[in-house]
Amino acid sequence: MFQSDSQTLKNFNEIQIIENIKQWLGSTTPPSPIGIGDDCAVVPPEPSAQSLISTDTLVFGKHFDSSITAEQAGRKIVLRNLSDIAAMGGHPKYATLSILSGSNLSFNWLHQFYKGIKASSDTYNLKIVGGDLCQLQDDHFQAVMTIIGRAPKPILRHSASIADSIYVTGQLGGSILEKHYNFQPRLAEGQWLAENNFASAMVDVTDGLAKELNFLTDESASIQIDLKSIPLAQSARTLAEKHSENPIEKALCDGEDYELLFTLKHSIQSAQFEADWKQHFPQTPLTKIGTIIEPNPTANIIDSNSLKPIDGLKSFDHFNHK
Amino acid sequence: MFQSDSQTLKNFNEIQIIENIKQWLGSTTPPSPIGIGDDCAVVPPEPSAQSLISTDTLVFGKHFDSSITAEQAGRKIVLRNLSDIAAMGGHPKYATLSILSGSNLSFNWLHQFYKGIKASSDTYNLKIVGGDLCQLQDDHFQAVMTIIGRAPKPILRHSASIADSIYVTGQLGGSILEKHYNFQPRLAEGQWLAENNFASAMVDVTDGLAKELNFLTDESASIQIDLKSIPLAQSARTLAEKHSENPIEKALCDGEDYELLFTLKHSIQSAQFEADWKQHFPQTPLTKIGTIIEPNPTANIIDSNSLKPIDGLKSFDHFNHK
Repeated sequence: MFQSDSQTLKNFNEIQIIENIKQWLGSTTPPSPIGIGDDCAVVPPEPSAQSLISTDTLVFGKHFDSSITAEQAGRKIVLRNLSDIAAMGGHPKYATLSILSGSNLSFNWLHQFYKGIKASSDTYNLKIVGGDLCQLQDDHFQAVMTIIGRAPKPILRHSASIADSIYVTGQLGGSILEKHYNFQPRLAEGQWLAENNFASAMVDVTDGLAKELNFLTDESASIQIDLKSIPLAQSARTLAEKHSENPIEKALCDGEDYELLFTLKHSIQSAQFEADWKQHFPQTPLTKIGTIIEPNPTANIIDSNSLKPIDGLKSFDHFNHK
Repeated sequence: MFQSDSQTLKNFNEIQIIENIKQWLGSTTPPSPIGIGDDCAVVPPEPSAQSLISTDTLVFGKHFDSSITAEQAGRKIVLRNLSDIAAMGGHPKYATLSILSGSNLSFNWLHQFYKGIKASSDTYNLKIVGGDLCQLQDDHFQAVMTIIGRAPKPILRHSASIADSIYVTGQLGGSILEKHYNFQPRLAEGQWLAENNFASAMVDVTDGLAKELNFLTDESASIQIDLKSIPLAQSARTLAEKHSENPIEKALCDGEDYELLFTLKHSIQSAQFEADWKQHFPQTPLTKIGTIIEPNPTANIIDSNSLKPIDGLKSFDHFNHK
């Protein structure tokens, strides 16, 4: 990735790098002024939908390392951002991508990185409309993407009501083995939930289920989970076995699942909803893991089997790793 | 800025830092879901204007160092971004701000940084609606801002016509002495130029006049500049004297002037336009520095006095410092 020969960013000027990026992206960056090439990207108004804005970062040595390819790293930053749009029930539209890098970055590595950006953007109809290039010290690489989406009916956090059912898509835990860079953001699922008014609250699971559950409600409600029902990824079992841990703890605390966690309005029949889901998304597992309950004075999240608080769990924290 | 005692980011978790940032910003971050607090910011549609999107970076050790205060650094990243909106004739609306930092960053430094963010955002009616926190190695700090604006009639680059006059606001060169962090983005001026259909092309001068001039036209036109007319900042003279250089070279090549460079449509009377400008912007100097001419086969920019090409100039380049 970083190297001392001549095939690095050091040997290109800014205009050359930008011209190459435009070529690499092809139709993924529309002609200026929508795409790369002016002081700002200029995008048309969309009168009927609210705009969504989110931003996410990819740091070499933190969010990825040399064990994945440049193309996989490029995909990852796009997919991470798309997952935030999915969590609102939105449609991705535009993104800017800032590259901060040491000038000893391999030019070919950057090319491969943009291949991943282009492939994943094309799959989900995202256009790259601008960005920024910035030189860091050698051996450093970071990318920051800001994504703009549209949502006719965005689904917020903290808005679940008592008696709503709690669902999660996919399977949780152990994403470090592969899923953290290789996953499908649940865009179609999120849009379907939003546009049919099924969900009362929704987030994507990026920092571990135990942490994200707290975002479903405000202080007017608490959360009851059936720990045994949590869908465990095979990689959670594999890792738990290796480290003599409980796989449920992996599913609760590991980061980067990129699944949807949402509450179904209690006015909607669970059985009918689950049948509809299976018809629309036969490939996407859906699991009911709990219920929104009256505020619990002792703990915000309790296990429905033991009725004991689920606490002391080590979920991911960005500045304070325990 | 970075320190080893307990008053650093290391001693706060992510939720605590975000809560503090929300307090520091106060009304500058509206209540969620517009402001900080959900997977995405949700902003209302604005059917009558096009959206502008731009992104800019502030790196410790590159765009600022310990010679300016945290508050000045915070102001700088906002003002830099606003200058891009000004260059389109736009109105700033929303921004996301990502902080990438070593965990040994002083908590108080970050507080002061946000004071600068808040003050400059409030002045120009910009709302901070989201962001991201990311841990870097100790002693590193970067901020990335993406700004969203609106423009009923955005002014693009590369769109000047032959016989249009070239104007620049303010005075150029030597910004390193202070102006790079202490300047007024030319928002009102840009909006006035756009909404009255005066300008045919516009950019902001961030990488040196010599480089930015090339962005006014495409290959169907060239540029004639009266080198003697270029408005020199006092700091350009001061620095040139100190280093036995020509102050015009400072004005042509120094970065971070953050002035507007635009072309006046040739259908508009220069004298009347300049009189209107003085009435509207008595505090903002305006100087005619040249004209758009037929394509010149030898060089894209020539001096109207010597009729010789202006070349070999060392303008700022982000990856290839000479």
